[in-house]
Amino acid sequence: MADLPETHVLAIASHVTSGYVGNTMATFCMQTLGCEVSSINTVNYSNHVGYGRFSGRKSSPEEVAELYEGLKKAKLDNFDMMLSGYCPSATLVEQVGKIARELKLRATTSPGSFFWILDPVMGDNGRIYVAEDTVPAYKSLLQDADLILPNQFEAELLSGIKISDVSTMAQAISKLHEEYRLPHIILTSVRLPPTTSNTPAASDEDLAADAKISIIGSTATSDMKPRLFRLTVPALPVYFSGTGDMFASLMIARLREAAQSAGLLQTPSWRSPDSVAGPDLPLAKAAEKVLASMHAVLEDTMKHYETVDKRVREQHGNDETQKHLTLTRAAEVRVVRNARALREPAELEGFQARPMEIDA
Amino acid sequence: MADLPETHVLAIASHVTSGYVGNTMATFCMQTLGCEVSSINTVNYSNHVGYGRFSGRKSSPEEVAELYEGLKKAKLDNFDMMLSGYCPSATLVEQVGKIARELKLRATTSPGSFFWILDPVMGDNGRIYVAEDTVPAYKSLLQDADLILPNQFEAELLSGIKISDVSTMAQAISKLHEEYRLPHIILTSVRLPPTTSNTPAASDEDLAADAKISIIGSTATSDMKPRLFRLTVPALPVYFSGTGDMFASLMIARLREAAQSAGLLQTPSWRSPDSVAGPDLPLAKAAEKVLASMHAVLEDTMKHYETVDKRVREQHGNDETQKHLTLTRAAEVRVVRNARALREPAELEGFQARPMEIDA
Repeated sequence: MADLPETHVLAIASHVTSGYVGNTMATFCMQTLGCEVSSINTVNYSNHVGYGRFSGRKSSPEEVAELYEGLKKAKLDNFDMMLSGYCPSATLVEQVGKIARELKLRATTSPGSFFWILDPVMGDNGRIYVAEDTVPAYKSLLQDADLILPNQFEAELLSGIKISDVSTMAQAISKLHEEYRLPHIILTSVRLPPTTSNTPAASDEDLAADAKISIIGSTATSDMKPRLFRLTVPALPVYFSGTGDMFASLMIARLREAAQSAGLLQTPSWRSPDSVAGPDLPLAKAAEKVLASMHAVLEDTMKHYETVDKRVREQHGNDETQKHLTLTRAAEVRVVRNARALREPAELEGFQARPMEIDA
Repeated sequence: MADLPETHVLAIASHVTSGYVGNTMATFCMQTLGCEVSSINTVNYSNHVGYGRFSGRKSSPEEVAELYEGLKKAKLDNFDMMLSGYCPSATLVEQVGKIARELKLRATTSPGSFFWILDPVMGDNGRIYVAEDTVPAYKSLLQDADLILPNQFEAELLSGIKISDVSTMAQAISKLHEEYRLPHIILTSVRLPPTTSNTPAASDEDLAADAKISIIGSTATSDMKPRLFRLTVPALPVYFSGTGDMFASLMIARLREAAQSAGLLQTPSWRSPDSVAGPDLPLAKAAEKVLASMHAVLEDTMKHYETVDKRVREQHGNDETQKHLTLTRAAEVRVVRNARALREPAELEGFQARPMEIDA
């Protein structure tokens, strides 16, 4: 713990009373790694929507603005980093952008003193689950973000490029770097279809394997060219809500740690010199630790889930609603009982960033 | 960590974006000790009111009720414990009481399966800082609480007895046990004036020492007589907001741990057999660990405060507002950077519960 720098984070995302998604997930993860977290909640719900029933209300853009103004008046707004996640409307996305830009502007005289991780939560697997006008709202924020964390579908929405293989993925990342001058990008949850070619590229083969999931990251060079790396980990057979928030929040702490190690905290957007290769980037080093931690926590969650699943089949054989609710709860990520795995990721073997080869 | 039982807690209190009071303090403390915490926020403020400026809004009783209904519908309401703190109105106090009673009622067939810690936040040092009608609202809840944590002034409000010495304090605790059939009581932050007698009782002398602060606890015997113990710790010269919430939340985890060790988790309200003396109660054992943890965290906070204080005197010599804001922030309890002290309280020597002698 002693080596993690003290980091003040403004976290703007959803809040649930029960379970772990949005700020409820992110706040605990960041605090466990020693961050001072100020959370502004974009919704206050009883639980995540995967249960099929929930209560609570959305915050208005005015409420979010008002809380931020309160922090400013009490001189509590000197943040080192900001993490923004789910927003229930385009106007709230715009409000979050206003806050981030203000913090960024104030930091111009002190390069590297503010870093914004933007998770453009819009949809997954080909389906948008926010209002359509949220997409252009996010696009207008990209030029001010330091790192974005879209999943494959969100990267398609933002870049306008359909990602069907390693090559189109690299094109999408290149376009985001260039068009928005985005310093860092990580594509999460990448699953590409098997290549139809008879001699698939090694990287395609790896990414296509059903039981694996990859993240692809890149820090732009000084001329905005991508430096790609990939990290592939075993996929688990159950869908766990909140893993995107878990990834983003752990990246907050681990990226600052890695940037500090690399002596980049006074460099704009913590960008590495052009001589650093993709897999050696602080972005890659941070992601290795994050994925090692997450894998340990999710494996324990999986074990718990399987125990409950077995019991549920015996107890509620035919009550589908009860079964769904019980299993959804059993799939809540067990971060609290696995805080040690967050603080001290086990061996990184098997979680090493590798270069991405792209067919020309 | 492995010895702390998995505990599902419903926490109803205030939320602040920045700093550590109410649920913002309590949630982190309980999660760090491995509890699954579901938090419903009674207010959402930018920061605590000690800064002299803040923004945000109160939750209505309807909003609190709605979130709880949401949990019920999603079958997420099987709580082992509940912690309730600051409520901004009497009607919200009543709403919290409704929820607690419902959870208690459902647990009647399974004694010990639900435990409610009620912190009747009303005022301090002779001053009420909530609406006057909050006092009777809290009184009407006492009969259903398992443990209450009033400070000295709140104990006076609830018992109707002016506490001026050890004897009147014991009377107040006796009355609360008897009148409301309250199983457990802890008076926090007790500072009694020096006795005027020439031969003060040893206990009075101890409590009166300026640089010390005591808590006085009791678990009722089967005929509702008090079994008193006291714990006296060095007081620090700075006022730290949120220490009451820190105490209450750490008690949640440590009391369940102590009750489990004593084999009381299936006993109504976890009450010890009459043969157990005050200082040997699980309530006392839990409080020892809690105060040891708190003392370590507050000492580190004090060190931080002193560093800032020195710097502030040099920088903002005459700007009283800036000085006040900076020092108020410096007094935010450093729980996040001292999570280890919460999980692993150092040696308990110096934090041992002792019997209370009362002059007849």
